[in-house]
Amino acid sequence: MDNKAKVAVFGGGSWATAIVKMLSENLDEIGWYMRSVYAKEHLLNQQHNPNYLSSVEFHTEQLKLSNDINEIVAWADILIFAIPSAFLKKELEALNLPLSDKIVFSAIKGIVPETGQIVGEYFNEHYQVPLESIGVITGPCHAEEVALERLSYITVACFDREKAETVAGYLRSDYIKTKITDDIIGTEYAAVLKNIYAIAAGIAHGLGYGDNFQAVLMSNAIRETRRFIKRIHKMKRNINNSAYLGDLLVTGYSVFSRNRMFGNMIGKGYTVKSAMMEMNMIAEGYYATKSAYKLAKDYKRKSRTPILDAVYQVLYEGKDPMPVFKKLTEKLD
Amino acid sequence: MDNKAKVAVFGGGSWATAIVKMLSENLDEIGWYMRSVYAKEHLLNQQHNPNYLSSVEFHTEQLKLSNDINEIVAWADILIFAIPSAFLKKELEALNLPLSDKIVFSAIKGIVPETGQIVGEYFNEHYQVPLESIGVITGPCHAEEVALERLSYITVACFDREKAETVAGYLRSDYIKTKITDDIIGTEYAAVLKNIYAIAAGIAHGLGYGDNFQAVLMSNAIRETRRFIKRIHKMKRNINNSAYLGDLLVTGYSVFSRNRMFGNMIGKGYTVKSAMMEMNMIAEGYYATKSAYKLAKDYKRKSRTPILDAVYQVLYEGKDPMPVFKKLTEKLD
Repeated sequence: MDNKAKVAVFGGGSWATAIVKMLSENLDEIGWYMRSVYAKEHLLNQQHNPNYLSSVEFHTEQLKLSNDINEIVAWADILIFAIPSAFLKKELEALNLPLSDKIVFSAIKGIVPETGQIVGEYFNEHYQVPLESIGVITGPCHAEEVALERLSYITVACFDREKAETVAGYLRSDYIKTKITDDIIGTEYAAVLKNIYAIAAGIAHGLGYGDNFQAVLMSNAIRETRRFIKRIHKMKRNINNSAYLGDLLVTGYSVFSRNRMFGNMIGKGYTVKSAMMEMNMIAEGYYATKSAYKLAKDYKRKSRTPILDAVYQVLYEGKDPMPVFKKLTEKLD
Repeated sequence: MDNKAKVAVFGGGSWATAIVKMLSENLDEIGWYMRSVYAKEHLLNQQHNPNYLSSVEFHTEQLKLSNDINEIVAWADILIFAIPSAFLKKELEALNLPLSDKIVFSAIKGIVPETGQIVGEYFNEHYQVPLESIGVITGPCHAEEVALERLSYITVACFDREKAETVAGYLRSDYIKTKITDDIIGTEYAAVLKNIYAIAAGIAHGLGYGDNFQAVLMSNAIRETRRFIKRIHKMKRNINNSAYLGDLLVTGYSVFSRNRMFGNMIGKGYTVKSAMMEMNMIAEGYYATKSAYKLAKDYKRKSRTPILDAVYQVLYEGKDPMPVFKKLTEKLD
């Protein structure tokens, strides 16, 4: 792979926009697929994404923008997906090109709801992307702070160290530090689980638990993450690295996290349905809860996951959060 | 030890007041030494500590209040100290009784500035309290949330498990859960270090770093804590337990933490002296930084402590926080 690899970002949301901004510090040309024709036109004419991180000004001569996913896939060598997992399958239906010869990085941090898979697995199984060509880009990173060029640390994971290094090199800048790892499975699951724990933090807050409990919850959540991931993919990893613990904290302590907000509404008495309608969007952690719960209950991978179990009971078994969390507090320490 | 052990709390601040409240759920009589004559009289007449957690109502018939430290020491079997470490030595100067036959628990979480020792060591060396009679009471726990009876988890540490269990039993209630451990050294150092990391978080915030960096800082801080403590006292411990990671988070993420506030002022450009004057109090982490730095540089106990080093350089070497933290960001990951 040389310096001239063609990199494209898929998605029009804030995280996609932040990644394009990071890449624009290093690459002369960046492919960018977004569904919205309006957003694309606005970007071309006004140099800003009208919907997300609208303060960021792009040099449009750097951008190869398109509403046609095939055009961008055909052009690019390295594809970075930042489409919410709930829409990924549907967006990919328009694709009529193979991905098996592409390098595919996921910046999605969610579960594909239709299959219950993490995104890497999904591309591997459904699009025959070889495992060594699959990567993960993870935080701790709020897109909003990238827009402000506040120092952030990104972890790039790939079995193929060279590919991780290449992508990391494209993302790195004055305000972005990068770290590479081969723990593609652990980093992706950690990124998925943290949304569930952010929902738990929101529920607890909504029920009136305070900062002391929040600290206990996060301390238990990282231990639960460690147990969970170890069963899925055993390898030497320090769960307190930024990609795991940092990512949990930036989401679990963020009052802007959609997942935490969603949980907060549930804790305050909204039904799952009404919380979703009220938010006018779906928290990634909602789907993640179902898939992660199923995995955790799988007899081959069984691990003790009291927080995940509690969130599952509230979201999927219609249980009252108050007694469920009261019981949960007995299981934490 | 039976149910009738006489327990006394030393200190008139918010944490001392919170501990008396916890004990008052279980004990018929609690000794309580405080220096302020005014606060004692107010408590007796108005059932509230006028200065700290003033919303908490005490049943004064439960309290054996005194301004005479010797009176309370003579009466009690178990002494719980919650006097700020900066005043401990001075307060103990009035003592004319031995402590060697007492059980001494520290809820102080600081370094005795005059000797550079953690509180347990100080009582052991200067008051001949045997190590198996020394304990630590630690969080994650803001006193303010105890006042509100919000669920909190306390860790009680003692080499002598039975003593830990006794004290834990006195603290436990509907809103206080307890855990015991024999890691008295690790829990006490973790409690001390977290104040330094809270100063670091404050400095970073004051300098304009955001939530992404804060998550990276905390993720590095818990790894630094683990390395530091391991050199001081090697034993099997899970650094992600609430007494270590939880305690770090509740302080490092609290905008009310004095240590974080102190750091924030330094980051914003106050000198150390003016920040102290402005706050009209001394952040525990200030002394802790000096002692911990000295320990970390000790050739026998040398560990990599970039965050501690940076805070030390700012507080004690008069270095400009901006370049010091810029350099620090290169050492974190």
